[in-house]
Amino acid sequence: MNMTKIDTSLIVAQNDAHEDALRADYDSLGERLDRCGIDIAALTARAAAFGVAVPSWGVGTGGTRFARFPGRGEPRHIFDKLDDCAVIQQLTRATPTVSLHIPWDMADPADLNAHAEGLELGFDAMNSNTFQDQPGQARSYKFGSLSHTDAATRAQAVAHNIECIELGQKLGSKALTVWVGDGSNFPGQSHFIRAFDRYLEATKEIYAALPDDWHLLTEHKMYEPAFYSTVVQDWGTNYLIATELGDRAKCLVDLGHHAPNVNIEMIVARLIRFGKLGGFHFNDSKYGDDDLDAGSVDPYRLFLVFNELVDAEGTPGLDLSHMLDQSHNVTDPIESLMISAVEVQRAFVQASLVDRTVLSGYQTDNDALMASATLRAAFRTDVEPILAMARLQAGGAIDPVAAYRASGYREGVADVRPAVTGSGGGLV
Amino acid sequence: MNMTKIDTSLIVAQNDAHEDALRADYDSLGERLDRCGIDIAALTARAAAFGVAVPSWGVGTGGTRFARFPGRGEPRHIFDKLDDCAVIQQLTRATPTVSLHIPWDMADPADLNAHAEGLELGFDAMNSNTFQDQPGQARSYKFGSLSHTDAATRAQAVAHNIECIELGQKLGSKALTVWVGDGSNFPGQSHFIRAFDRYLEATKEIYAALPDDWHLLTEHKMYEPAFYSTVVQDWGTNYLIATELGDRAKCLVDLGHHAPNVNIEMIVARLIRFGKLGGFHFNDSKYGDDDLDAGSVDPYRLFLVFNELVDAEGTPGLDLSHMLDQSHNVTDPIESLMISAVEVQRAFVQASLVDRTVLSGYQTDNDALMASATLRAAFRTDVEPILAMARLQAGGAIDPVAAYRASGYREGVADVRPAVTGSGGGLV
Amino acid sequence: MNMTKIDTSLIVAQNDAHEDALRADYDSLGERLDRCGIDIAALTARAAAFGVAVPSWGVGTGGTRFARFPGRGEPRHIFDKLDDCAVIQQLTRATPTVSLHIPWDMADPADLNAHAEGLELGFDAMNSNTFQDQPGQARSYKFGSLSHTDAATRAQAVAHNIECIELGQKLGSKALTVWVGDGSNFPGQSHFIRAFDRYLEATKEIYAALPDDWHLLTEHKMYEPAFYSTVVQDWGTNYLIATELGDRAKCLVDLGHHAPNVNIEMIVARLIRFGKLGGFHFNDSKYGDDDLDAGSVDPYRLFLVFNELVDAEGTPGLDLSHMLDQSHNVTDPIESLMISAVEVQRAFVQASLVDRTVLSGYQTDNDALMASATLRAAFRTDVEPILAMARLQAGGAIDPVAAYRASGYREGVADVRPAVTGSGGGLV
Amino acid sequence: MNMTKIDTSLIVAQNDAHEDALRADYDSLGERLDRCGIDIAALTARAAAFGVAVPSWGVGTGGTRFARFPGRGEPRHIFDKLDDCAVIQQLTRATPTVSLHIPWDMADPADLNAHAEGLELGFDAMNSNTFQDQPGQARSYKFGSLSHTDAATRAQAVAHNIECIELGQKLGSKALTVWVGDGSNFPGQSHFIRAFDRYLEATKEIYAALPDDWHLLTEHKMYEPAFYSTVVQDWGTNYLIATELGDRAKCLVDLGHHAPNVNIEMIVARLIRFGKLGGFHFNDSKYGDDDLDAGSVDPYRLFLVFNELVDAEGTPGLDLSHMLDQSHNVTDPIESLMISAVEVQRAFVQASLVDRTVLSGYQTDNDALMASATLRAAFRTDVEPILAMARLQAGGAIDPVAAYRASGYREGVADVRPAVTGSGGGLV
Repeated sequence: MNMTKIDTSLIVAQNDAHEDALRADYDSLGERLDRCGIDIAALTARAAAFGVAVPSWGVGTGGTRFARFPGRGEPRHIFDKLDDCAVIQQLTRATPTVSLHIPWDMADPADLNAHAEGLELGFDAMNSNTFQDQPGQARSYKFGSLSHTDAATRAQAVAHNIECIELGQKLGSKALTVWVGDGSNFPGQSHFIRAFDRYLEATKEIYAALPDDWHLLTEHKMYEPAFYSTVVQDWGTNYLIATELGDRAKCLVDLGHHAPNVNIEMIVARLIRFGKLGGFHFNDSKYGDDDLDAGSVDPYRLFLVFNELVDAEGTPGLDLSHMLDQSHNVTDPIESLMISAVEVQRAFVQASLVDRTVLSGYQTDNDALMASATLRAAFRTDVEPILAMARLQAGGAIDPVAAYRASGYREGVADVRPAVTGSGGGLV
Repeated sequence: MNMTKIDTSLIVAQNDAHEDALRADYDSLGERLDRCGIDIAALTARAAAFGVAVPSWGVGTGGTRFARFPGRGEPRHIFDKLDDCAVIQQLTRATPTVSLHIPWDMADPADLNAHAEGLELGFDAMNSNTFQDQPGQARSYKFGSLSHTDAATRAQAVAHNIECIELGQKLGSKALTVWVGDGSNFPGQSHFIRAFDRYLEATKEIYAALPDDWHLLTEHKMYEPAFYSTVVQDWGTNYLIATELGDRAKCLVDLGHHAPNVNIEMIVARLIRFGKLGGFHFNDSKYGDDDLDAGSVDPYRLFLVFNELVDAEGTPGLDLSHMLDQSHNVTDPIESLMISAVEVQRAFVQASLVDRTVLSGYQTDNDALMASATLRAAFRTDVEPILAMARLQAGGAIDPVAAYRASGYREGVADVRPAVTGSGGGLV
Repeated sequence: MNMTKIDTSLIVAQNDAHEDALRADYDSLGERLDRCGIDIAALTARAAAFGVAVPSWGVGTGGTRFARFPGRGEPRHIFDKLDDCAVIQQLTRATPTVSLHIPWDMADPADLNAHAEGLELGFDAMNSNTFQDQPGQARSYKFGSLSHTDAATRAQAVAHNIECIELGQKLGSKALTVWVGDGSNFPGQSHFIRAFDRYLEATKEIYAALPDDWHLLTEHKMYEPAFYSTVVQDWGTNYLIATELGDRAKCLVDLGHHAPNVNIEMIVARLIRFGKLGGFHFNDSKYGDDDLDAGSVDPYRLFLVFNELVDAEGTPGLDLSHMLDQSHNVTDPIESLMISAVEVQRAFVQASLVDRTVLSGYQTDNDALMASATLRAAFRTDVEPILAMARLQAGGAIDPVAAYRASGYREGVADVRPAVTGSGGGLV
Repeated sequence: MNMTKIDTSLIVAQNDAHEDALRADYDSLGERLDRCGIDIAALTARAAAFGVAVPSWGVGTGGTRFARFPGRGEPRHIFDKLDDCAVIQQLTRATPTVSLHIPWDMADPADLNAHAEGLELGFDAMNSNTFQDQPGQARSYKFGSLSHTDAATRAQAVAHNIECIELGQKLGSKALTVWVGDGSNFPGQSHFIRAFDRYLEATKEIYAALPDDWHLLTEHKMYEPAFYSTVVQDWGTNYLIATELGDRAKCLVDLGHHAPNVNIEMIVARLIRFGKLGGFHFNDSKYGDDDLDAGSVDPYRLFLVFNELVDAEGTPGLDLSHMLDQSHNVTDPIESLMISAVEVQRAFVQASLVDRTVLSGYQTDNDALMASATLRAAFRTDVEPILAMARLQAGGAIDPVAAYRASGYREGVADVRPAVTGSGGGLV
């Protein structure tokens, strides 16, 4: 079964037009890195080994509470979504896995496995959903799920999470990501301590159902959809949860889920230090949980996060799940995900350029200027030739967006997938 | 035609249970105010004359981009919405008008007038909508409306606004409120100067169609639905727009549309000083445009806004449109709007207690402590007896929520209005 | 030895002018509370028992990095400061203790005890200082103290803290508050994990010297004086520290030390839940660590904090240290501290009005509107008559500021304390 | 008179060690840019022509309200400061002018001119100081300066500004920068409208004394040293001031003076559009007015600002004053200023790489992804070889910090300039 989504010959033709320039840039960069004692081939191999999961919902057009403006050829179901994910992986070679969201992606596991296998895709963390009501659902999550005051509602949410684990086991997933919107919109609406204890009790039940080789990843978020308080509001609470649950419970960090001005890379360092970092939802933001493309607003912040991760490589027990989590409202989601995966990979490679022995010396000497300059020199190194070479060598595209556009993939799926009309929330 | 929504005898019975206590509290407060030279009867009359418009969309349950959890008895159309608004006015006597949103509330103006008249409601500012696509709409607002790069799209948005004016003229409205979500999600997506000039040019066309006795109210907002830049992002830009347009163009201030920590009451003072304050969208917020109930999170901020408004009374040309603009996600919208209207009225009455001659003396003497204490003394005065007495005297309810619950109104409409199922945006 | 600072007869005369009105207001409030089943006398006794410590440095005029504008009669040393603190306590009866800062307040403990005893003042938590260099100090804290890369500097900081404990033992103090400014101004300057481990190791040495009946209170702060990263940056890190140290280590919460928009009352609830809340530095803020007068900017937030504290009364092990921590740049510090102590006391009394059984019912029923209304009803109750009566009954002033101004205390000390000239930091 | 601060032969020797590598990198970058139709020589000339002023106070070690930790060899007076500024210019060739602050830098203009001339330095904008009290000053600025309630205090502040202009005229300066800390710490302390009108009236008097070929640059700031309200709090107010004053009044933008999350580059675009952008105070910040080194925290933001400036080149009347304004608390100020000047220059050169015709096409087509990618491609181009070549060609250092350290300049001045001891503000 050949399920390749983009014709290989098209990629080859596209690459041919860029290859000479790429090799020239790669060679001159190689010489420059060589002066610093860095082997560009090794770095390219390192880049090639890096992967970040694509969220299944990311290939659909996102929206806001005000409106959603659909794109052409929107995926109709998880199999369409997997096809789109395969395009991203085929062209970037940086997204070998897909992260499912249940019940949106519910399907027969055999069919899911077969379809993914044909596309040479694997499955990453499973995502449960207790922030929406599904048709026919016995109890509403309007006032919460795992922390709801009603025991039956909590039990329903626990059961749903356990179903996600069970499905995930059949798909080869090794983690469950739990994000809840539970919280309150008014001072007094919720009793902070009791709500947290209910959340904890319910989550312990999920944890009890977790296979031995799985991680339970809990995700904190400052606000939205709750606008006064949120049960898992920050990394401090997230850490407490992971600690209460046990060794296989870890904290997931979404870059857009923090208060303004917060130093996220320091939070990453704290969680590493105390053995509780589990992974990331990568995206970028300027205001709140904007879910913009990774690295599009503050690329240095993304670099600083990877500076912590590269620094911590080799830490016992550090085994991270990396995923993109974005809302593509005004771009073709496939394009945004390709570019974003590359940006995450770029930050990883740039952070790998830092000479940590030299940096450590500056830190010990309190030479703040040279320590800062060391990080910035790594960051401003244009590693695009390394990333492009890694793609080329793996059969991907030197210029993924150009190749994608040339392929006519979007037009092709638009022909078979029916157009969707826009919708609005009805709120100002 | 008797269209009273709540049986008057029920209100009377409810009030009877509270009236003795109210009169006792009112009298003791009257004595206390008398010591300060304040006439409680005059203040009560002042409270009674205060009104704030209800937005038609406010009586429906709100939602977030993650989900909407409907309530019972959701209004099906503008006539149901007007009924709900009538309940709010009947019980609080503080919300004599309704603000329509087009096309959501589109209907035959004769029917609208008749229905509103029967309910003793008037129409406040008209609200246009160019942040969503409507079925059958020729051009999409996905990439903007009044500032769109495409002239035909801008023309469509202008035409829609002019239609809103025309409808509003038939309803006795005197203002058009224009809020657009135009902006960008990526650095580079939009050329700031050109986009602004397009916005300005289009808005001038709307202004040209504005009747002589109308106001054009433009509304600024920092972000959402655009997450990198917004064309009308702050009061500075809003002021420039109103100045470019002309005398009948004024700035609308929504309390939740500012950057974190911004001093909103000072913005109010600036706009008053330069003749460009047009009115408010009242609500409260803790994080972003949370659209929480007015006064529920930071009541002192609401008071400080009214402190500016009361201080500026008598300023030539100051003629403000006051409206609630909230999203009721977890409460009965009618209850939230009643409480919120009363909170806005409360802030107005508290601000009226400030002895401005005394305050001015402290300000001149730089007696910061006593100036601050003067405002706080007014704020902590419990004026609830004044508000309740104003309601009682006008035929409203001493305790509007209790009366509403006792009336069974919600259960009644739930019987005739079909249940709506929840929906979710499909985003994380 | 009679060390009364304000003539008792003056206070009596001042009170005489207000007493009739106070009794009238007190009685009518009593009747109103009685309707709700609340005994005003019991509440007054509760208010009278409430105390908050005054920081010794608070009675001096504060400043910013741009300038300090001294007031008249600035205290020259700790004995002058104690005199000023005694005035605050004499008039408000809400500030029975003083919190010392070492080395600023270093003096012979016998003299300190004698002076304080004569003023009927006790000593609250001791505060160490490793964020400034003192004349003759062997090693500089320019690049940190307890987390410094240099072991000798850390040892110096540890030794200083132990000296503070030793002095405090002689003064009857039962707590050491540790706040450090350690952090970095540049990405890369500091290695987050190593810096934290050094901090932890050093703080453990201080903890080892802590008497069995003492608390070690560590204080987190988002930023300033370090402007990129701070070692103890938030409650999550603070919690980790307290947990690593042991049972007598607790977290101190300064209301101005958080990121914008953060829900502080929820942090309070989390720390209570996990047994690590140690106390407060009360103040108010609009932007950063503004150190404004408690309750002057967002009084409802202060109330919501006390709502958590009152709710948690009776929690085993909960034993809190309350202190004001403000910078009085434009007011007479004595006046600001009097007003602020009363505002803290006010929030405590208002929070005591909440019927927690009723509230709990609303919470269980997810009646967000009534839960919110319940808190607001307590908050808007004007409890000033209770606070004033508590002062009157204890020999304080009904109107502390008026009595203070009438006393001529400031003019008196200005005659004997030499004038200080202003100073500026030399920075823009 | 030879006043060269660093021995030219040392610079030559330092450059010799780097020149081969630089030429290799420059050539390969040249080839790459050539592919995009960009002439590296022209770009290098453009870089060489770019200059940013150094603030005289920047060469001294900064501090916070908590402490100042001096460095070695602190400048004693303006002549020492000019010497330090000359080092920065000698090594970077990017800082040809110095901006003076009065009264800190008050001296005989003839001496100032002679000293600066010998160092081949010019004078940029003059800075007045009415946020501190000077010894012997008749009236205090504790409660404001240009907006003070007292007319004599305002007159004193006006007179000081006029003196600054008069001195500046003798030095060849062409601009006066006015930043005031005027504002309030308490709601109610200040009457917003009256305070603003007093400010406006006083500033008009300064403007009346402005020479025809000068600019008056007013600077807005959200907060600090005032912590509740600030008279010139944002760009909106700044714009109103500049408009009220006249054509030669322009707005100065300090990158650290905005609310959290604010889109500064859009403010830049607005001020350009309405003819009121006057210049910049460059620095970086993570929390508030942190005054960190330009480009050290968010280099992409700096780039986006220059993207607007390069885009607007050729706009009639656009004549900008660029200055660094930073507080160097933990680094050698000379080093920080050298690096920061280069970072500002880097952003300028990177922004010059953007193909604006191509970008404009993407914007017109709403191709958000490619528009964003276009900016990022320019930003990630490592233009260090261009900057270094511009320095080399102009006689500066390829690696300014290394050359500076090798020169022993700091040790040299430390020998003749007496050591300064630290100081602390006495506040927590």
